Amino acid sequence: MSNKPEQSWKRKLHDIIYEAETPEGKLFDVILLIAIIASIILVMLESIKSFDDKFHNFLNISEWIITILFSIEYIARIITVKKPIKYITSFYGIIDFLSTIPKYISLLFGGIHALAALRALRLLRVFRILKLARYLGASNMLTSALKASKAKISVFLFAVLILCIIFGTLMYLIEGEESGFTSIPVSVYWCIVTLTTVGFGDIAPVTAVGQFIAALIMILGYGIIAVPTGIVSAEYTNRHKNDKPVNPEDTVHLNSQSCSSCLAENHKDHAEYCYSCGEKLSV
Amino acid sequence: MSNKPEQSWKRKLHDIIYEAETPEGKLFDVILLIAIIASIILVMLESIKSFDDKFHNFLNISEWIITILFSIEYIARIITVKKPIKYITSFYGIIDFLSTIPKYISLLFGGIHALAALRALRLLRVFRILKLARYLGASNMLTSALKASKAKISVFLFAVLILCIIFGTLMYLIEGEESGFTSIPVSVYWCIVTLTTVGFGDIAPVTAVGQFIAALIMILGYGIIAVPTGIVSAEYTNRHKNDKPVNPEDTVHLNSQSCSSCLAENHKDHAEYCYSCGEKLSV
Amino acid sequence: MSNKPEQSWKRKLHDIIYEAETPEGKLFDVILLIAIIASIILVMLESIKSFDDKFHNFLNISEWIITILFSIEYIARIITVKKPIKYITSFYGIIDFLSTIPKYISLLFGGIHALAALRALRLLRVFRILKLARYLGASNMLTSALKASKAKISVFLFAVLILCIIFGTLMYLIEGEESGFTSIPVSVYWCIVTLTTVGFGDIAPVTAVGQFIAALIMILGYGIIAVPTGIVSAEYTNRHKNDKPVNPEDTVHLNSQSCSSCLAENHKDHAEYCYSCGEKLSV
Amino acid sequence: MSNKPEQSWKRKLHDIIYEAETPEGKLFDVILLIAIIASIILVMLESIKSFDDKFHNFLNISEWIITILFSIEYIARIITVKKPIKYITSFYGIIDFLSTIPKYISLLFGGIHALAALRALRLLRVFRILKLARYLGASNMLTSALKASKAKISVFLFAVLILCIIFGTLMYLIEGEESGFTSIPVSVYWCIVTLTTVGFGDIAPVTAVGQFIAALIMILGYGIIAVPTGIVSAEYTNRHKNDKPVNPEDTVHLNSQSCSSCLAENHKDHAEYCYSCGEKLSV
Repeated sequence: MSNKPEQSWKRKLHDIIYEAETPEGKLFDVILLIAIIASIILVMLESIKSFDDKFHNFLNISEWIITILFSIEYIARIITVKKPIKYITSFYGIIDFLSTIPKYISLLFGGIHALAALRALRLLRVFRILKLARYLGASNMLTSALKASKAKISVFLFAVLILCIIFGTLMYLIEGEESGFTSIPVSVYWCIVTLTTVGFGDIAPVTAVGQFIAALIMILGYGIIAVPTGIVSAEYTNRHKNDKPVNPEDTVHLNSQSCSSCLAENHKDHAEYCYSCGEKLSV
Repeated sequence: MSNKPEQSWKRKLHDIIYEAETPEGKLFDVILLIAIIASIILVMLESIKSFDDKFHNFLNISEWIITILFSIEYIARIITVKKPIKYITSFYGIIDFLSTIPKYISLLFGGIHALAALRALRLLRVFRILKLARYLGASNMLTSALKASKAKISVFLFAVLILCIIFGTLMYLIEGEESGFTSIPVSVYWCIVTLTTVGFGDIAPVTAVGQFIAALIMILGYGIIAVPTGIVSAEYTNRHKNDKPVNPEDTVHLNSQSCSSCLAENHKDHAEYCYSCGEKLSV
Repeated sequence: MSNKPEQSWKRKLHDIIYEAETPEGKLFDVILLIAIIASIILVMLESIKSFDDKFHNFLNISEWIITILFSIEYIARIITVKKPIKYITSFYGIIDFLSTIPKYISLLFGGIHALAALRALRLLRVFRILKLARYLGASNMLTSALKASKAKISVFLFAVLILCIIFGTLMYLIEGEESGFTSIPVSVYWCIVTLTTVGFGDIAPVTAVGQFIAALIMILGYGIIAVPTGIVSAEYTNRHKNDKPVNPEDTVHLNSQSCSSCLAENHKDHAEYCYSCGEKLSV
Repeated sequence: MSNKPEQSWKRKLHDIIYEAETPEGKLFDVILLIAIIASIILVMLESIKSFDDKFHNFLNISEWIITILFSIEYIARIITVKKPIKYITSFYGIIDFLSTIPKYISLLFGGIHALAALRALRLLRVFRILKLARYLGASNMLTSALKASKAKISVFLFAVLILCIIFGTLMYLIEGEESGFTSIPVSVYWCIVTLTTVGFGDIAPVTAVGQFIAALIMILGYGIIAVPTGIVSAEYTNRHKNDKPVNPEDTVHLNSQSCSSCLAENHKDHAEYCYSCGEKLSV
């Protein structure tokens, strides 16, 4: 099925880039992981003024090297995939694009500050390389417990928000602008800071009544933290119990091979055709 | 049962306002929900001085529009209900009244600051529209678990309060007024701030003995947070277990229809008479 | 068994003071409860300077009234009990004495500041009146769960303390005195503040390395809070499960009657003799 | 097997130092425990400037006494053990060495500040004396629950870290250097401080958008604390349940005797040979 040499070369590159089973694929993933972490550290160091002043050239050159590496990788991904449009418009495709272009834009318009944020998106690429699904597989039970308790947690957070708006308005009226409660939104912000037991202290009540209500909010926050914990914990315990008699024949080993046509991953071992698009898989 | 045309018109309006099953009822609820959220945002924006200075007229006119809308709704609710006194003196009747009048009062006496608080009460009206009972239905188990552990949580909070008063008095004696522990109530307030792990830092111990006792309070607070969490979590787990073999025939579907006489909600589907006052329901 | 009139009078007073079953006993308890709460509020108000300046005479007279009331009660308790020495040396006997004398001492030596602390001990008397055992009865399961997990929680807290000493020493070396880490004990205090997620902010790391280690401590504290919660929650869940098939005939109703000789409480209903000293109980 | 008198003397000393079963062994452990705690208190007091100024000579002499005591103990441990190299290179061997030499080094190079840290390592020696394994035995279930949930907690902490880096970068862009968010690493540090609900308040957002995102981070942190708690709690509950029908004949009593050759501990009672190296144990 790979009679043309050009095709064969493409397929080989595809296997290196998209799969982690072969030695070359593993090597590629490790190099990419190092490049991503290095680029994140570069973004961080660049933001430290004293460091940037001293090593500006080093940072600039390093950033160019990483940008070029990422550009090559991005183009290689487009070339080797059968449906490039699907890759470009996919979640990781967009992340790859956005984390590559900032340096090129800075060439045109000068170093725009806000572009650093885009570069921080590179961090999300780590998830792809680690193919975290495999790691998370161990905690599948946890995610399903979280999903099961999603509705309850939403109601809980909604109630917390309403509590914060009402208490925030009250504190605004009681404390007033002298104590830092300059507006209702700021008061609501303070109320969230207090209820979640963060307590920055940049704004703090000074009147007796304000401190009394603040104490109420704190005890409330201290008490209701039990609610999400109780929900997750109970759901998790129950899931654990019901899932016990797992038949070993029902558990299926998934590999990290990805379809060269639709990029779907987690195929069953020994699968010959993609479960998502029917394309023949390269074994 | 609706022979007079005037009666029929009233019944129609009643259905629109009080029920969410019909398309008109749903539309009314959505409009009201938007109006409430808009009014809350208005209250918030008005409290931001710089914003109020710029857009005072816009805020004033918007507030009048919402006040008039709410007034019409309030009057419509009184007219269409069979027992208006019961509605007016009900919880939501009072909320509706209090969240409508502030603007009228400000016309008479000028913009009194504290009236903003009343307007924030509009937030409580959200619960009626969302007919949150339905949403909370999903977490009925949670509320019943909370109810079951209410007595234990009360004893727990009572013990926490006594701890805070005793430690607060102690800290007042040790730290004294120089460190900000100006009186016993303030010390108790500080103790609550510390025990609940909020920790504003506006008041903090400076003497060695004070810091030692503060450390004790913190570790205590860090440890006893386990108690409410453990209670809720365990109650919830048990409830889950016992409630499992629910007979599907025992579960009853409740609708959001409300009795035109006594406003009771959550009637059983196909119920013909109100379970609370015996009034015939409009189907 | 109460042939002498003087004896009978004493027995009657004993029943009023020590028991809560009779109407007179209940009335006595309610009055005492109000007196205790009033006295605590007095102690608090006295500590507020501006309030004390204005209402000094009122506070002084109120304090004398309460002191005299408590003195009469203390003497009555000694007279009516069969073994006064046992009462005087008991936990509540000492509390009663310490919470009564401060005002008398202030008569001799002037208002000594530290005596206010003794008066705050009155709060502990609330426990006796409420005969909290009855309330706690509902959460007996909780206390037994706490007892069962005591050993584990002790090991946990010991490990937390050692962590704090080691990290505290480290932070003292890294941050030094300029950042407020003036000595190792202060650093350890800061470490406890951070690990328990209180975070006052009066002392905060400023160096990069210090902030990095601080972040580590925080994540550690955020993570290990799961440990005590998990212990209590699990112990509680298990207790719940095992205690379910409680035979109703095994549950015994205890009353709040107390033995006139040894003050032991929680006798079984219809008990004729004290379970602790064998003295005949007055029914 | 101890025919030579010199051997017998060594064996006796070995039993005193390494074992806690005999009266002499217990006495040795108690003395060592006191010495360690005293030395830790010394290190702490020395760091308090005002205290060091007053009692410098006392602190110096005390430190020398403890250092000499520890030196003798260290040499005794080397002599009495059959394989000294194994002891010296073991975890506790290195701790013993590092916690003894600082005073000798200060003799050569003067009081180097950073050496205090090494002395704080003495704290780790407490674990050996307490032979904490015995105490922890009670909470073996807890540690095994922690081990079982290690993978899930790692994934959780990894996700938290990535969240902090992304939110930290965002806050750096929004707040900028005026609010204290001077660089991305500092922003990430602030984000960890906020997410873990510590909230120092040395850095706090001042812009409306910054406060809004900060509120999101707090609610996130308040919500996701449920995750590790739920994991540990559920694992612990399940472990409890499965471990219930423990056959008493399966439980084995371990003693604190340690092999004179390889230092392995926790031998079974009545064991005659070391389970680790096969050396005959002294009974």
